[in-house]
Formats: sequence, structure tokens, C-alpha cells
Amino acid sequence: MSAPIDFWFSIGSTYTYLSVMRVGDIERQNGITFRWRPFDVRAIMTEMDNIPFTNKPIKARYMWRDIERRAKMYGLRWSAIPPYPIKHLGFANGVALIGARQGWCPQFVRAAYRRWFVDGRDPSSELELSGALHEIGQDPATVLAIAASDHAKADLNAETDAARALGIFGSPTFVTGKEIFWGDDRLEDAIRWHLQAK
Amino acid sequence: MSAPIDFWFSIGSTYTYLSVMRVGDIERQNGITFRWRPFDVRAIMTEMDNIPFTNKPIKARYMWRDIERRAKMYGLRWSAIPPYPIKHLGFANGVALIGARQGWCPQFVRAAYRRWFVDGRDPSSELELSGALHEIGQDPATVLAIAASDHAKADLNAETDAARALGIFGSPTFVTGKEIFWGDDRLEDAIRWHLQAK
Repeated sequence: MSAPIDFWFSIGSTYTYLSVMRVGDIERQNGITFRWRPFDVRAIMTEMDNIPFTNKPIKARYMWRDIERRAKMYGLRWSAIPPYPIKHLGFANGVALIGARQGWCPQFVRAAYRRWFVDGRDPSSELELSGALHEIGQDPATVLAIAASDHAKADLNAETDAARALGIFGSPTFVTGKEIFWGDDRLEDAIRWHLQAK
Repeated sequence: MSAPIDFWFSIGSTYTYLSVMRVGDIERQNGITFRWRPFDVRAIMTEMDNIPFTNKPIKARYMWRDIERRAKMYGLRWSAIPPYPIKHLGFANGVALIGARQGWCPQFVRAAYRRWFVDGRDPSSELELSGALHEIGQDPATVLAIAASDHAKADLNAETDAARALGIFGSPTFVTGKEIFWGDDRLEDAIRWHLQAK
């Protein structure tokens, strides 16, 4: 079993929808494993003054059309432009990080993205977080209580610090060895690099 | 002969190096033609306050590493990080537009990008523009005199207006029918769309 590719992401990132829905198939087909690493991309982007879409309506409109085309290209569901930005990005990714610690992160994140992109609802509300947790067999009250704790917030901050230290500035980012690959559209580059470096 | 894909670009855009060097092979292999459309991307990006790399050193460092990896993936030459940004973007693309009117645009732009990315020199200086023109068999004095004219500047502005009207905000952008595809990493998506739409 080779080392995994680290899959750094934030619920709330738009293009991350494509990766969240693709990496499972890639694991099955290529014998690669991904380690899901939720972090708070908004904190890093804000401190870098990296605001690519807000107040850039033309670029934002293009982004949604591009995601729609690419979702269809990958055979993923697409309904309509979902609510954006999501409201409680830190809290949602704190829940995802609890999932990473407890072993249910991918299932939860896929459920959250379905609620966002397919059902068109902000996945970071308590209602939707609870729904996604319930759907994957976790107890919402228990998990959300942990997510609200100082310990969980510190854990997410530490992961965000680790991402920052690697030079990560966006979601999704794939890391193999010392190479970082930013964007769903670099997933294949990351896989190629990972397989050549083994 | 089907309609061409419009290849909108500016000398001075970094990722455009990859497309400038790739589209010739793609034309030969896929029977597609590209219409080279120089414009002033800097004017559009400035008015949109879309400044992706300047003052974002972490993102800029990633960009160069990404371009280096992708250049090697495509079998293109890579020397070192070239001078950036280039000084006379408008003038260089004005020369490219004269080339588009006179039939030598691709040759000139490839020569300019070689000087920039392989030789490591700002391709927008009079010296380098002259060298690139001489290299492809054009008379530098004649072409640069045209490029300095009000007519040539108005022509570039009109092309930039046309790009803006299409919703273009970056270089390279590929346009087929009503669909726009931004980035060298969307060239294959543009080709797929173009071939399906025929």
C-alpha cells in the first residue's frame, strides 16, 4: 500500500464538488488512496486578499457555467447554481474534520455536497448538517456538540495552519510528496506525479 | 472545413505559453483550425480588479511551478521563471494583431514566447519585438511603425472590446459557438465541445 494523496478541501468551495464526487471512483480504479483533509480555505484566502469571485460577476458567471459543463462531463448531477457563498464554512468543515478523526469524512462530505449542489440548500446550516449526519448514520446532536467545542475549533485551526505551511491557498489541493496541485483540474496531474514518484 | 475555434490571447499571459505552443500540433492532429485573436487582457483585468498574482507571492510561486510541470508534461521547453510582468503588453499585442491581419500571427507569437520563456527576456521590448519579427521574415521597422499608429491602437482596442463583449476576462480563452473556455487547461474541453457541436 503506497502513501495516500492528501486531499485538502473545504466544504464551501465550488469546484471542490467535482473532486468530492470523483475521488471515490479514482480510488477504486487506480488503487490510489486519498486522505481527506478538511481545512478553512476562507481564512487563508481572506488573509491573502484572494477573493476570486465575489464582486466579479462576469468571472463568477463563467465559473458556474464551467462547473456545470465539467459536472456533466464527469457524469455528475447538476441542478442549478446553488446558494453561494455558504454561511458557516468553518463550522461545516469542523464537522468534516470530526468525520476525518472518526472515519466517516468522505460519506459526510458527499452528503453535504449533494444537499448543496443537487438540492440547492446551504449545507452549512444546522438543519442541513444534521440531515447529512443522520443520512450517514451519525448522531447529529452528538457530533454538532463536539463541533461547537473549543477543542474542535482548535483542531480545524491547526489543520488550516498545516495547509498554510504547505503553501496551500485554495480548495481542492492535492499533495503528494512535496508537490502541491491546486484545483479539480489538476487531479489527474497529481495522480500522474504520484504514480511516477512511487 | 468547419468553423475555427477562436483563440483569444495576450502576449504577456503566462499560461498562454502552453497554448501558443500546443495549438499547432492540435490543428495537425485533429483537423481543427484556430483563429488567433490577440487582445489586451491587462485592460480587462485591470478594470475588473482581477489581479491574480501580483502581491500574491504564494500563488505566484505555485503558478510558475505549475507551468513548469505542465510545460514538461507537454514536451515544451522550460528554462527558468521568466521576467514578469512584461512591460509593453499593449504594444506587443498590437504587433501580433498586425500579424493576424497580414497572416503571420502564429509564427510571430511563438517566436515572442520563445524569447520570453526559453531565453528569459521581456518579449515586449523593441529589441525583442524586432528580433522576433526579423526571425519570421518580417521587416521590423515597417511593422513597428504600423504598430505605433493610431489605427493599430484603435484596432487592438476594438478587438479588446469584442473580447469583453463575449464575456472574456482572461488569456487564453477559446470560443466555439456561444461557449467560452478559459485557460490552457480548458483547451481539451473546448475541442470536445467544438467537435460535438459540429
